[in-house]
Amino acid sequence: MQQPARQTVSALAITLLCCTGLTMTLEGCASNSTPAAAPAASAPAPVQAPPAPKSPVQKPLTADESDPNKMGWMQGFPPPPDRIIRFDMAGNMFPRTRYGFSHVREFLPTRVIWRGDGPVSKLPRAEQDIGGVAFTDAGGTRRTFAEMLKLTYTDGILVLHKGKVVYERYSGALDAHTQHIAMSVTKSFVGTLAAALVADGKLDPAAPVTQYVPELKDSAYGDATVRQVMDMTVGVRFSENYADPNADIWTYARAGGVLPRPADYKGPASFYDYLVTTKKEGQHDDAFAYKTVNAEVLAWIVRRASGKSTAALLSERIWQPMGAQSDAYFSLDSIGTEFGGGGLSTTLPDLARFGEMIRNNGRFNGKQILPKSVIDGIHRGGDQAKFAKAGYATLPGWSYRDMWWVSNNSHHAIEARGIHGQAIYIDPVAQMTIVRYASHPIAANAANDPVTLPAFGALADFFMHQK
Amino acid sequence: MQQPARQTVSALAITLLCCTGLTMTLEGCASNSTPAAAPAASAPAPVQAPPAPKSPVQKPLTADESDPNKMGWMQGFPPPPDRIIRFDMAGNMFPRTRYGFSHVREFLPTRVIWRGDGPVSKLPRAEQDIGGVAFTDAGGTRRTFAEMLKLTYTDGILVLHKGKVVYERYSGALDAHTQHIAMSVTKSFVGTLAAALVADGKLDPAAPVTQYVPELKDSAYGDATVRQVMDMTVGVRFSENYADPNADIWTYARAGGVLPRPADYKGPASFYDYLVTTKKEGQHDDAFAYKTVNAEVLAWIVRRASGKSTAALLSERIWQPMGAQSDAYFSLDSIGTEFGGGGLSTTLPDLARFGEMIRNNGRFNGKQILPKSVIDGIHRGGDQAKFAKAGYATLPGWSYRDMWWVSNNSHHAIEARGIHGQAIYIDPVAQMTIVRYASHPIAANAANDPVTLPAFGALADFFMHQK
Repeated sequence: MQQPARQTVSALAITLLCCTGLTMTLEGCASNSTPAAAPAASAPAPVQAPPAPKSPVQKPLTADESDPNKMGWMQGFPPPPDRIIRFDMAGNMFPRTRYGFSHVREFLPTRVIWRGDGPVSKLPRAEQDIGGVAFTDAGGTRRTFAEMLKLTYTDGILVLHKGKVVYERYSGALDAHTQHIAMSVTKSFVGTLAAALVADGKLDPAAPVTQYVPELKDSAYGDATVRQVMDMTVGVRFSENYADPNADIWTYARAGGVLPRPADYKGPASFYDYLVTTKKEGQHDDAFAYKTVNAEVLAWIVRRASGKSTAALLSERIWQPMGAQSDAYFSLDSIGTEFGGGGLSTTLPDLARFGEMIRNNGRFNGKQILPKSVIDGIHRGGDQAKFAKAGYATLPGWSYRDMWWVSNNSHHAIEARGIHGQAIYIDPVAQMTIVRYASHPIAANAANDPVTLPAFGALADFFMHQK
Repeated sequence: MQQPARQTVSALAITLLCCTGLTMTLEGCASNSTPAAAPAASAPAPVQAPPAPKSPVQKPLTADESDPNKMGWMQGFPPPPDRIIRFDMAGNMFPRTRYGFSHVREFLPTRVIWRGDGPVSKLPRAEQDIGGVAFTDAGGTRRTFAEMLKLTYTDGILVLHKGKVVYERYSGALDAHTQHIAMSVTKSFVGTLAAALVADGKLDPAAPVTQYVPELKDSAYGDATVRQVMDMTVGVRFSENYADPNADIWTYARAGGVLPRPADYKGPASFYDYLVTTKKEGQHDDAFAYKTVNAEVLAWIVRRASGKSTAALLSERIWQPMGAQSDAYFSLDSIGTEFGGGGLSTTLPDLARFGEMIRNNGRFNGKQILPKSVIDGIHRGGDQAKFAKAGYATLPGWSYRDMWWVSNNSHHAIEARGIHGQAIYIDPVAQMTIVRYASHPIAANAANDPVTLPAFGALADFFMHQK
């Protein structure tokens, strides 16, 4: 067997980078939803033979064609050389991500989020085959819910209605007890923990960031407030132009150890070290701007305010009281800090428990786990005018608060969103919670929103019209 | 913060190397028990300023002085630079191992050993304070059991008598729900799985190794049998001379990714790739020779015979039926293969469940988990004359079979042994099982056997004389 070839910009490195919700093209990273003002195609990435601007776009494998079991990733002792996936190998993009997203701990150092030693909370079942529920996608095509799952490369979906599991399906590398990476859904956990600390009186959203993290005094965050970080209205220069080898994103990624470092690397030694170098751009509180560095700063603030690691706090405050069935975990950066912007992996049923707890105003497993005020705060949403400035074409009228996406629609739906299709979708009016893990070949949720959001809406209507 | 300095031979790399049970000096690796024929002091290692042969040996910190919580490893956001531990940093020897042994997943890729979704098996309790039980150590000093725990840098100990937990103590970085590395105790799991496959009719111990792993036909294992591998009576050249920078051990370690590789590395890409290069030395079946490559080969055989990864097989065959309280995990080599020679991490109570299952002739949690013939086979032991040739001064009359150490004493005690003090000690006559995780500064069990074995013996006598 040959030593596998290595490249400077790798494989699962890109997968992890994708967690951060950045802009890239087909098979690369993209902002969580592609802003109309910055179409994804404008930022090709200097990696893995990105599609040239004028070449015909190659159609990616379908969900069935890219089934990771059929493709044989990591099967055999050893697997064939071209079926091995490692962090520092080239070529770990889609379709390898269909395996990799369900096995992050096999590639990177991780820290456990302990489930505790109490009983597992029950998720009562009232199964219905909702696969045939029909809807019209944003392009006008009539589809079924089951078709949507294939079109969005869904690895697992769990739908709850009135607190009961109506539908639960897995495919490919995922099953009910395997942890899948949540990508930027992680940010909503960090935002929720921050809001919980606010409710507990341990974190002041009006305080300057520097009250908790004095190290940031000379950075973009030197005159920002905690609330601005929680709602991503910080004016921070953070270039995510993949075409520019000197873009901030590469420095950031290498700082965190998410990209391999050259032997003579002299840059920041960790995410923290990177964050202190950020520079201000524009004004704070002027516009919503989705930048992963904000989530990373918020995770830092939360650790300082709580005195606990993100993993320990999430375990104590949420995972243990909600009766999670499984431990979860965070991937770690180059000095052992949890990747707060996108490094959480959970089982799908535990993601569902978390979503149900939010839908139930903080109550779950017979306990008030978070004060109702925390969930009220999320539902209040951010400033829609500031959100509109970011130009998200698929999310008209939405806003962003406490690191949740707030639809402001008639059902008061809120969503936690991660690239490649990760989602917690909560519809309080329809009493519906949907959690989905996926491995869509296109990072941007703009690629799946046109089928996903109408499908979720149709399901809500379906439930509303059941007697 | 500065980018931490890196060295060719690192830190936790050494920790992991130590899993393999090799010969080294103070604060380095050593064979599982130092053979008299090859005193540890004869093989200084080219790492981390090993004590020069003639310099005075510096006394290591005591258990209390090296308490990892007091030392503050990985505490703070970020921790102070000199309190950070990472895999690829220099200086991760004792006392950092007192933290690192309980946090392997935070440094390396790992694969889960799923506990299943059944109920946790009960470990009934009948607590007694046995800390005062007295014994005379091998040097003639009168000691107590509690003193032994300090002298051996015990991170956690759990003593069962007649199936009930009599005593359970943790210190430092370990608690009842944290996984600690089992080091070469891992080999006894691999040996037990192999014996189980034999009992299941899926593995023929008399068959040539090449029946399962044809790739080994030109290696030292080309004319060896499975039984010879299970009992480590293979004649294989495997130099563990740390003073020689060209020793096989370095090639082996780099192949598995347990040591960082130079940028221009062209050697074997994995443990498997290394194993096929091994050469024969002497005759098979002539003498017991403790070499970690045998455990690695046996793990390969077990995967081929079962068609499952070591993690999956251990989960299905043992972890799930025994009602483990927690998932366990394996660290992975450079292509994602479990490190069968020393990469298992478990909680202490789950190690106790496994030990009790063995003591109870395969029965535990209301089930016959392994056939009694498997445990009978272990107790039968290996050839004592062949064992004696290896010259283990602290283990007179012992033998080795199915990767267990067999005392052949009047209590028919058997032991799973890992460097730095990891142990499962089963005394069928006294109906006693002791499991211990530790982080002794000296790898060789020869350093703790003189207090450990008399203490365990005294405890057996104590129980035997209770009415």
